Amino acid sequence: MTPALAPSGAEPTTGLRVAILGATGAVGTEFLRLFETRHFPVAELRLLASERSAGKSLAFKGRNIPIEAVTPSSFEGIDVAFFSAGATRSREFAPHALRAGAYVIDNSSAFRMDDNVPLVVPEINLHAVGPADRLISVPNCSAIILLMAVAPLRKLGTIERLIVSTYQSASGGGAGMMRRLVDETKAYLDEREPEPNLAHPPYAFNLFSHNTAINAEGQNEEESKVIAESRKILEWPDLRINVTCIRVPVLRAHSQSITVEFAGSAPDEESVREALSRAAGVRVVDDRTANHFPTPLMASGQDDVFVGRIRKDPSHPSAIAMFAAGDQLLKGAALNAVQIAEAVIPALRTLV
Amino acid sequence: MTPALAPSGAEPTTGLRVAILGATGAVGTEFLRLFETRHFPVAELRLLASERSAGKSLAFKGRNIPIEAVTPSSFEGIDVAFFSAGATRSREFAPHALRAGAYVIDNSSAFRMDDNVPLVVPEINLHAVGPADRLISVPNCSAIILLMAVAPLRKLGTIERLIVSTYQSASGGGAGMMRRLVDETKAYLDEREPEPNLAHPPYAFNLFSHNTAINAEGQNEEESKVIAESRKILEWPDLRINVTCIRVPVLRAHSQSITVEFAGSAPDEESVREALSRAAGVRVVDDRTANHFPTPLMASGQDDVFVGRIRKDPSHPSAIAMFAAGDQLLKGAALNAVQIAEAVIPALRTLV
Repeated sequence: MTPALAPSGAEPTTGLRVAILGATGAVGTEFLRLFETRHFPVAELRLLASERSAGKSLAFKGRNIPIEAVTPSSFEGIDVAFFSAGATRSREFAPHALRAGAYVIDNSSAFRMDDNVPLVVPEINLHAVGPADRLISVPNCSAIILLMAVAPLRKLGTIERLIVSTYQSASGGGAGMMRRLVDETKAYLDEREPEPNLAHPPYAFNLFSHNTAINAEGQNEEESKVIAESRKILEWPDLRINVTCIRVPVLRAHSQSITVEFAGSAPDEESVREALSRAAGVRVVDDRTANHFPTPLMASGQDDVFVGRIRKDPSHPSAIAMFAAGDQLLKGAALNAVQIAEAVIPALRTLV
Repeated sequence: MTPALAPSGAEPTTGLRVAILGATGAVGTEFLRLFETRHFPVAELRLLASERSAGKSLAFKGRNIPIEAVTPSSFEGIDVAFFSAGATRSREFAPHALRAGAYVIDNSSAFRMDDNVPLVVPEINLHAVGPADRLISVPNCSAIILLMAVAPLRKLGTIERLIVSTYQSASGGGAGMMRRLVDETKAYLDEREPEPNLAHPPYAFNLFSHNTAINAEGQNEEESKVIAESRKILEWPDLRINVTCIRVPVLRAHSQSITVEFAGSAPDEESVREALSRAAGVRVVDDRTANHFPTPLMASGQDDVFVGRIRKDPSHPSAIAMFAAGDQLLKGAALNAVQIAEAVIPALRTLV
């Protein structure tokens, strides 16, 4: 019996002692729902957050779990810790959690490009996780959704280049940005001035270039992440890829317009549809007659990444264009993290 | 003195006798504002619409102008008619207006691809209008905004290919779609069911592939228009171009993520910025330090097409990526139509 299965209290139970760092965030609360719906074997649940949230509680399986302020000793006795509190907190607390013997599944960007840390989308590169790995990074949400739609096409030919424009939802900016979108929209409709917002351009019925710092090449941080992380996940350092990341007034699912150029001849549309239909975690919605294609609302609350508008790109002899939508909080974050735990932790591989 | 300047009543006035067909629509009402702000010399104004709107009136220069139901004889004595009531009405009434001797500036798709009808963005191809032309088509709004951002780059090199993803506003679907976006958003925020809407997917905090019929190549009508019209306006039947048209929950300006591939080497970013800064009708907003780039809100109510996020495309040896936003109702429709009239009608060329 592994330590993961040792009961932590008097009650004879099997399961994991689980911690969530960033429990009150937009991604954090999704973990609680996923643990229930996926029957994730939680023997003990520790909810960790900043001082600000300590003292509050969250409901889990009918019980109220108190939220504790995270400290270096918060991870004693924990089997797996899901981190979703930003890169600074991940850098500070991951070493403590690892020293306590926990698996750390990190949703932040802190370790993603670290050569010693696997960056994993389970459907694509689970093989990147070695038996000794205890720290595993969850990729950027836009990178996950893009690669879920693109990786299944590798068996149809050699992908030569990706050109991507995103339609990213508020949830990628956290619960605070979701609230701002709603509040600014209400103010607009009531013809009131919204609360001043210095973080980004007005959001009600508006969209804007991803509001992160621009580097010397003219890419914002989100675009740089998608480019670098796609190359790492696909194990393809020279992958030719450009991304334009735009924030749209949508609440919780990201969409993407994707052009895939192949070396040689492009696969026909039907082969693309079939490859995507067979891919785990992908759903093809591509009904031209009914004009029924992926939308962020359709993808919200759903595990799958939706792909449609599959067609030959008339501007290139061997390119395919398509449109994808995936829930940023689920496959883009919490679900991908839970799937990593389910696939990687030995005790879970037999339990689940 | 040309007939255009002949006074139509007793009052000694100079100016044109102007008709607007589709006066009550989202584009139609913009004409009235443009006539005032541009001091367009209107001697007489006839507002035409369907039977449904007849009897209402619209304010123009402090007077209420009655709206008349359009008939074949509505254009008697008219010098210039602006059509913005859809392709079916344009096909029906353009012959009557032309027979009455009027210039017809048509915002619909009815005649755009007709070899005998110039399709004009004045900053780009005014030379396409011959001295005998009386019927001139205004291009599709997305085509205008795209080409305003792209045409000035032709002097920097040979453009080889365009890859475009649009973020199109509700106004492109008319006043009715703008109302639906507002109504559905209010219903969502009030947790009410919105009025059922069979024309397109739910719109509150959602986006969707342009809801027009898909052809055998997988392109919707909007995409086909942008492709075909761009080729005609640029006089380049083989232009390699692909477009993905997406409707976003924004009220009145369209945005676009644009990749421009050049033959040979790409111009440097500074040359692109300079070429766009010098182009009439284009405003460069590209402040990386302040993260200040074009947004549809910024472009709303403005004549210029805004361009920014100008950068080398790292996935191609000679491509430039950029992001544009332009008011769909102004440069995308009414303004472009008025500019055509100002440039083409002989009486105006001396007057304005």
